Amino acid sequence: MQEKYGVTYPEGFLAAGISCGIKGNGKKDLALVFSEKDCVSAGCFTTNQFKSYSLIWSQKHIRGPIRAVLVNSGNANACNGPENWTLTRELAHQTGKFFHLPPSSILLASTGIIGRKLPLENILRTLPELKKNLSVDGHLDAALAITTTDTHPKEDQKQLPIPGRKKKVSLGGMAKGAGMINPHLATMLCFLTTDACIHQQALSCALKNAVEDSFNMITVDNDRSTNDTVILLANGLAGNRTIHLETEEYEIFAQGLKDICRQLAKEIAYDGEGASKSLEVQVKGGFCISDARQAAKKVAGSNLVKAAVAGGWPNWGRILAALGSTNVRLKTSRVKISLCGIDVYHGQPLLYPEEEIKRRLSGRQITIEIDLGSGQAQAVAWGCDLTEEYVRINREE
Amino acid sequence: MQEKYGVTYPEGFLAAGISCGIKGNGKKDLALVFSEKDCVSAGCFTTNQFKSYSLIWSQKHIRGPIRAVLVNSGNANACNGPENWTLTRELAHQTGKFFHLPPSSILLASTGIIGRKLPLENILRTLPELKKNLSVDGHLDAALAITTTDTHPKEDQKQLPIPGRKKKVSLGGMAKGAGMINPHLATMLCFLTTDACIHQQALSCALKNAVEDSFNMITVDNDRSTNDTVILLANGLAGNRTIHLETEEYEIFAQGLKDICRQLAKEIAYDGEGASKSLEVQVKGGFCISDARQAAKKVAGSNLVKAAVAGGWPNWGRILAALGSTNVRLKTSRVKISLCGIDVYHGQPLLYPEEEIKRRLSGRQITIEIDLGSGQAQAVAWGCDLTEEYVRINREE
Repeated sequence: MQEKYGVTYPEGFLAAGISCGIKGNGKKDLALVFSEKDCVSAGCFTTNQFKSYSLIWSQKHIRGPIRAVLVNSGNANACNGPENWTLTRELAHQTGKFFHLPPSSILLASTGIIGRKLPLENILRTLPELKKNLSVDGHLDAALAITTTDTHPKEDQKQLPIPGRKKKVSLGGMAKGAGMINPHLATMLCFLTTDACIHQQALSCALKNAVEDSFNMITVDNDRSTNDTVILLANGLAGNRTIHLETEEYEIFAQGLKDICRQLAKEIAYDGEGASKSLEVQVKGGFCISDARQAAKKVAGSNLVKAAVAGGWPNWGRILAALGSTNVRLKTSRVKISLCGIDVYHGQPLLYPEEEIKRRLSGRQITIEIDLGSGQAQAVAWGCDLTEEYVRINREE
Repeated sequence: MQEKYGVTYPEGFLAAGISCGIKGNGKKDLALVFSEKDCVSAGCFTTNQFKSYSLIWSQKHIRGPIRAVLVNSGNANACNGPENWTLTRELAHQTGKFFHLPPSSILLASTGIIGRKLPLENILRTLPELKKNLSVDGHLDAALAITTTDTHPKEDQKQLPIPGRKKKVSLGGMAKGAGMINPHLATMLCFLTTDACIHQQALSCALKNAVEDSFNMITVDNDRSTNDTVILLANGLAGNRTIHLETEEYEIFAQGLKDICRQLAKEIAYDGEGASKSLEVQVKGGFCISDARQAAKKVAGSNLVKAAVAGGWPNWGRILAALGSTNVRLKTSRVKISLCGIDVYHGQPLLYPEEEIKRRLSGRQITIEIDLGSGQAQAVAWGCDLTEEYVRINREE
């Protein structure tokens, strides 16, 4: 397996992850990503109308300059009453003071139980330990500290063919899962770092595009969390020529960012709690990109399709029913469906090798290919199966 | 328990339900509702883009005059290739011929497995037996013959305070479940009868309004079937003065129809397969009726809320997350939530009696009350909990 460096892979980033006592049992629940130099930054935040106060703080200050992101798990800091907005501001101010930085250069994120008071004292008390642990090797501890119901930490990194002063421009990232399965701990968080020197507008644009084709295309439940956050920090330490929109370097950077986001998004989808199989839905022939995306997500998110995937049987009827219940433009007489590479429907049922398809569907990676027959647009969505384990986990407190 | 008369409660309707061998094991799978006199009729049909050929036939001929509705279960007659449209027309023609009626006076409906050939021969062969069984007492056999994964047949009837020639105007109905759980058998069907003398426009309008507040407000999965059908036949045999729109009689008729539809809709929702509890979500304070409906359905349909209901614990955080993920206008600082009569949230978490709320949530009927704090509109949605049994049933072939 490739060695992971995550968020500290790019030049000039440090990280740490420790326990501050929110989760209990000494489990890591506080992470810090720290840049040695001011960062240009960009973020994507939940569209849920109920938002975590930590998220509201970050949304307010995302335009930077940014030096650090402080993340706690175990407490969502959401729907817990307006006095927690005061506590949230206090957290940023005290953390800034501790690191001799302006509070506006500290971003915050939280994930965990909704409705509980922000554990300000716990966090402030452990800042010295967090600072002491900051290092290039701290990326894995940080990736662990942001997890909740994830079964493993999620990291990725990449070097881009853009020359810098000493070495090439790099990207790194870590994420935690949209288990959404233990839904009071239901959040998708992703923190991305780069040493690229890049204009803020280019950074925002690249992130928005990458998120649309990655994190916005995964589904475990159909609910959106109050805390979903993606943050990208660029400290410019690679010393490359500043990247602007509509340049060759921008295209390379944007593609590299999309690759990392897709990788982390897939890991989140496939680690959906209770999941026993991963599901990739590839749609082509869409009238427009929005149709293709909607079709892919509808199928990947359908309880009935997901349960059929768990059972490992070729129920293309459920796929058609899910597609048809959208307003996506499709030609019912031209729609094609393949399961794990075997055509099962083309305007009408096809004969297929029963034993072979069951063998393929018994595997752990299930692919559904759909041709809407209405145009040229394509999209991919990722998800997982629906198992009894999902329900079991979610009915527990 | 009140004695049930279902679809034969109004004057001049007969019904029968028999086995024609689609389901096997001698299970009833063919139903006929028959009127002694031509009916004015109205229907609501699935919005799924993939439609059953039986449904397409009925949609085409719904404007009547209608004499009979022939319903099979066990085979959806959907997505099974264009030659089945020919078979469907043949079915209506042969049935019409058998009863000495024009084919256009016969409506059709199907529910069952998607993608299989319409069993025309089976159905035609058993028409004589079906005719022989037609009677006022046949309502229960018919209600049984249209079921698939339902645990019990669903019937209701009502007398309205509208005087007729001899007795008052009556309404009757039968429905089958949106288990959606054995989703290749996933359909909601409802057949309603009345002896009212009523203008077609008034009948259509009353049905549309009743369906919006009843069948459109239940949710078991979030997928729409290829076969969902509601049909209302009015044979005029009560001999009342013809009911027109915007009259007092119309209001009485429309309310009575809504009551029956709500009753049957609730029975469908609460009989969702694997369901161990029923869920009623009452929303008030909506900016408009569409907001209130959307909020109620979103909460009643959320996997996370449904799993919490199964577990019997007061997770209002999931309710807020579901509400917030819609575009429904709400004041986050004014939103109120009560669970089984106990207030748990009002702009911020409230203290509530922990033991008492757990006791109430351990019951079989769960009520969630929500005030959106944005206006005067109200809506109610009905659903059920999400259990391991749901997944177990759905992963089986």
